Amino acid sequence: MGADERFGLNKGVRLMGPVQLDNGAAFAPLDFAYESYGELNADKSNAILICHALTMDQYVASTHPVTGKDGWWVNMVGPGKPIDTDRYCVLCINVLGSCMGSSGPASIDPGTGEPYAMDFPVITIADMVRAQAILLDHLGIDTLAAVVGGSMGGMQALCWASLYPQRVRSAVVIASAARHSAQNIAFHEVGRQAIMADPYWRGGDYYGDDTPPAKGLSVARMAAHITYMSEAGLTEKFGRNLQDRDAKSFGFDADFQIESYLRHQGISFVDRFDANSYLYITRAMDYFDLAEAHGGNLSAAFRGSQTRFCLISFDSDWLYPTAESRRIVHALNAAGAPVSFVELSSPFGHDAFLIDAPDMNRIVDGFLRAGV
Amino acid sequence: MGADERFGLNKGVRLMGPVQLDNGAAFAPLDFAYESYGELNADKSNAILICHALTMDQYVASTHPVTGKDGWWVNMVGPGKPIDTDRYCVLCINVLGSCMGSSGPASIDPGTGEPYAMDFPVITIADMVRAQAILLDHLGIDTLAAVVGGSMGGMQALCWASLYPQRVRSAVVIASAARHSAQNIAFHEVGRQAIMADPYWRGGDYYGDDTPPAKGLSVARMAAHITYMSEAGLTEKFGRNLQDRDAKSFGFDADFQIESYLRHQGISFVDRFDANSYLYITRAMDYFDLAEAHGGNLSAAFRGSQTRFCLISFDSDWLYPTAESRRIVHALNAAGAPVSFVELSSPFGHDAFLIDAPDMNRIVDGFLRAGV
Repeated sequence: MGADERFGLNKGVRLMGPVQLDNGAAFAPLDFAYESYGELNADKSNAILICHALTMDQYVASTHPVTGKDGWWVNMVGPGKPIDTDRYCVLCINVLGSCMGSSGPASIDPGTGEPYAMDFPVITIADMVRAQAILLDHLGIDTLAAVVGGSMGGMQALCWASLYPQRVRSAVVIASAARHSAQNIAFHEVGRQAIMADPYWRGGDYYGDDTPPAKGLSVARMAAHITYMSEAGLTEKFGRNLQDRDAKSFGFDADFQIESYLRHQGISFVDRFDANSYLYITRAMDYFDLAEAHGGNLSAAFRGSQTRFCLISFDSDWLYPTAESRRIVHALNAAGAPVSFVELSSPFGHDAFLIDAPDMNRIVDGFLRAGV
Repeated sequence: MGADERFGLNKGVRLMGPVQLDNGAAFAPLDFAYESYGELNADKSNAILICHALTMDQYVASTHPVTGKDGWWVNMVGPGKPIDTDRYCVLCINVLGSCMGSSGPASIDPGTGEPYAMDFPVITIADMVRAQAILLDHLGIDTLAAVVGGSMGGMQALCWASLYPQRVRSAVVIASAARHSAQNIAFHEVGRQAIMADPYWRGGDYYGDDTPPAKGLSVARMAAHITYMSEAGLTEKFGRNLQDRDAKSFGFDADFQIESYLRHQGISFVDRFDANSYLYITRAMDYFDLAEAHGGNLSAAFRGSQTRFCLISFDSDWLYPTAESRRIVHALNAAGAPVSFVELSSPFGHDAFLIDAPDMNRIVDGFLRAGV
């Protein structure tokens, strides 16, 4: 991949960095795959960075090349949308550690000519953000009009505002948290153990042939997917409805719609995601605790912040519940940072931020307009 | 195993039944492994049946022969305890489908001389109860002073009162539900898929050698175990504490105590439980919907009930939340059955009923005394 500074779709660039990682090492080269929407203005002051979640990617508002599906936030990003590509140049970068073109465990290690696999360094959310800053340097973008993200994207947005307060004018943090809880870590650990229990995982060295640890990754995805939906939402959508049958089979087929749905979620995930990337990114999330480097004082992470913040949570989100957003708001208040916060009502649990939510769209729209 | 009608520890009996199953078939022979505590009185009117949960067993108040640990409810059952073995003859029967001596997939099919494995019939909670009734017939116990259970044990207690109202004077239903929700089914399906994804599962035919699907069963247990604890309880017990280290390893070892704890829960479970039994019993729970046979009208399941009921839920139990107990109470009220109900406060989530809970013990004690 050569450097390519035009703005458009399907961009990629290799930079020599290196990025200084939290594990103490320096990492290079850095491949970045990113998408952009809208035009960068003359003084490069209208860029908005959207940070994606664990299993998402840079295809925020363009067709996914593997699944053929629409971008994952088309209701939010586009001409005349809340994140308006007529006014902003919107960037979304595949995170470090992922598998859609940016450097990750499936990338070729130039030192060996083989995929890194488990020799890829264990990274953190802050490492992802430092890498993104290197790409923005390369693109000549000094200051972001806004950094916006939901879930793990929100963690990156918080990290951006903490690490580079002078580079972030506004931050939008949706359905997120400033640290992973014991329960969050527990669910991720189940997923990692499921992957590593799959004999096809082979210590991570499965890239040579066409047999990745599909069953393990599928089980990991199924477990995680439950945490993305609310109990009430599952009951409303599936209840105890049977799948394509009038009566129970008295067997182990997918009798219930919820079983069929979960199996489909697991199987289809394998087609678009790399198992080792799942290990690395879940690890980065589990390691995330923004207050840790500040002696446990979260407000110290935002000391001297010049950023204005908007936080949104959803009442049925039990993965990153409202209490976690409130904790961040209290810390921002203590740091003297301007912050608006709203808890929205939704039956869709954590995934509410990915679903068309007019209230969320209105809030983001208003917040960005007020910041110009 | 020959018939043995003495009361004491470690009882087992083979009965020819057959038990009529919900799948339409008849099943025999029926092996029963059970424990008893206290003396049956002359008119056999002082028996209390304790029904155990998914991964529990008949060792309610005696040492587990595999783990060497105390019985799982020693605070509740014993001389002078709430379920007082000085006054009652307490029975606990390993459920049909389990692996501690009663008939299950690991049992030898007399027709083939081989373990049933996946030829064991898919059973229901009602089937478990019908089998227990056959054993009680054999023991000459016509009426139970009480049937008591937590979690899946509570489902059996509800089923007992519904199927055999004239045989149950009192029923105690703790941390339970009258049906499995979509979320309940979803978590169980993850566990089943984890087991069946393990190549050592081999379609269930793994009894011939010493390599059961340990990793799959371990992952299943880890996922389930998260649902037994509350988010607040996990935070209080583990938080983000590191395990035997001062700093993160930047690797995939169990850095956090919660990871180490979950891995231990998974691994140690494999030593005492059969993977196929886990498939069958989770399936029975997922199939459970007491109202289903009554056109969705739960109160009809208790029509004409002569049983007095005591329901207890825990406020931090998100597996079978208080709303499910309340739904049962409303149905019992509608059926005109006497019922007392209390939601107890506990940080321990679903597992609260297995932990020493003085309030729970007092309620059970008072309820049983009032029923004499």
